[in-house]
Amino acid sequence: MFKNRRKIQIEWGDCDPAGIVYFPRYFEIFDACTAALFEKAGLPKHEMLKRYGIVGIPMVDTRAKFIGPATFGDKVEVESRIADWGNTSFSVEHKVFKGDKLIAEGFEKRVWTVRTLEGDGALKSQTIPAEVKQRFA
Amino acid sequence: MFKNRRKIQIEWGDCDPAGIVYFPRYFEIFDACTAALFEKAGLPKHEMLKRYGIVGIPMVDTRAKFIGPATFGDKVEVESRIADWGNTSFSVEHKVFKGDKLIAEGFEKRVWTVRTLEGDGALKSQTIPAEVKQRFA
Amino acid sequence: MFKNRRKIQIEWGDCDPAGIVYFPRYFEIFDACTAALFEKAGLPKHEMLKRYGIVGIPMVDTRAKFIGPATFGDKVEVESRIADWGNTSFSVEHKVFKGDKLIAEGFEKRVWTVRTLEGDGALKSQTIPAEVKQRFA
Amino acid sequence: MFKNRRKIQIEWGDCDPAGIVYFPRYFEIFDACTAALFEKAGLPKHEMLKRYGIVGIPMVDTRAKFIGPATFGDKVEVESRIADWGNTSFSVEHKVFKGDKLIAEGFEKRVWTVRTLEGDGALKSQTIPAEVKQRFA
Repeated sequence: MFKNRRKIQIEWGDCDPAGIVYFPRYFEIFDACTAALFEKAGLPKHEMLKRYGIVGIPMVDTRAKFIGPATFGDKVEVESRIADWGNTSFSVEHKVFKGDKLIAEGFEKRVWTVRTLEGDGALKSQTIPAEVKQRFA
Repeated sequence: MFKNRRKIQIEWGDCDPAGIVYFPRYFEIFDACTAALFEKAGLPKHEMLKRYGIVGIPMVDTRAKFIGPATFGDKVEVESRIADWGNTSFSVEHKVFKGDKLIAEGFEKRVWTVRTLEGDGALKSQTIPAEVKQRFA
Repeated sequence: MFKNRRKIQIEWGDCDPAGIVYFPRYFEIFDACTAALFEKAGLPKHEMLKRYGIVGIPMVDTRAKFIGPATFGDKVEVESRIADWGNTSFSVEHKVFKGDKLIAEGFEKRVWTVRTLEGDGALKSQTIPAEVKQRFA
Repeated sequence: MFKNRRKIQIEWGDCDPAGIVYFPRYFEIFDACTAALFEKAGLPKHEMLKRYGIVGIPMVDTRAKFIGPATFGDKVEVESRIADWGNTSFSVEHKVFKGDKLIAEGFEKRVWTVRTLEGDGALKSQTIPAEVKQRFA
């Protein structure tokens, strides 16, 4: 299965007064790891947006479970994979490891999104090109 | 039911290159809204930590659904309430409204957490005092 | 002199493991306070961008001095004013007060910026309309 | 001269609606690069705090100049060095390069800081150990 693993160093600025990662940072990390997954599949986000005329891959549903703490100085590794392809949306799963220990899990559902050209430029979903999906096969 | 409503102005710095709120910001907003909910119940977070000797109320499970977009200049309102009390954990629900329209929902499960005094100062859960729960009755 | 004062509640998520505001947050606060200053002058940022066809007012030089600490639960007040108008750039000054005590100062130099229509859509400076400046007189 | 160079990938979440790095992110980057500079000198921040009993190295004065834009997908490199040692404070300089081009500069003045044990646990400066300075010689 197509996966990406990315090393992340936890920084002082990622941590809260309890000395552990402030949980919204994990969602920033997951977001960057999804971009890294697409980059590994040959689709760096900035190129993908231009090539397919999309405005982004906004989140519609996301979840994270935090099993163990991490703090500044920790080096963690995030394993990411596409969990599911829909017609206009897809799901990504992330697992965060500190050494061998799973310390957090993330789930994302994102939508392939274009900006409509009429009037207000509202965002709407669009069919994900088959060639995009094939890159992860 | 005990609730809090908090007005939030979406700022330029909350938004991503698609011009909409970068989704991890919502988790920061939810975190501040949970603190505001406790403050409304008479427990400002900085006082609550001192009074009960806890290190924080870390997240163990959180989820958000994004129904409609918000952008800088938007003024949204977040309605927050305790959804469930456990022995050492509790759940919070947030609903984000732009005008009358529900645009996002958040769910948090948090743990009443102390730092152990032995050795490594590991974090562990502790029974939530009854008087804390009563404030939300 | 035209000024704006904005109340800011320092949140848990603004603070670092030392328990004080993580300093990059101050720059986010200053950025939002500059937007609030323009809004008070009748130019909410999202409307200003549309009306004048600018892509933003990016920073070219910024500085902050931190005189005293602030922590979560603190309510501070930021006083902001235009310090100087140039042809295509302007400067903003921010003073952060905790009660009567000045705890931080910020300085920003920003550029009135448009996106060029040729080729690569590079950013370039443009003359600030006189009517914009007059609103702050 | 003792320096550190660190590669940084600019992420989608680092960028604002103008599509360029939201400037407060640079201060987070500089903060992490200062930590990396100390780590290269044999003092990872989490170990340094424990070894010397300091609460951190808080910022008292910081400045940045932005010369050219960076956007998501850009890989930049930050070169960091100690610019000056004082008795209880020190200065750090950062230069951000995109390829060969200098696109931003940062300056930091930080204080070697302990928490007082009396009463309110206020923060105060302390003499920087000579052995710390020698590591950068």
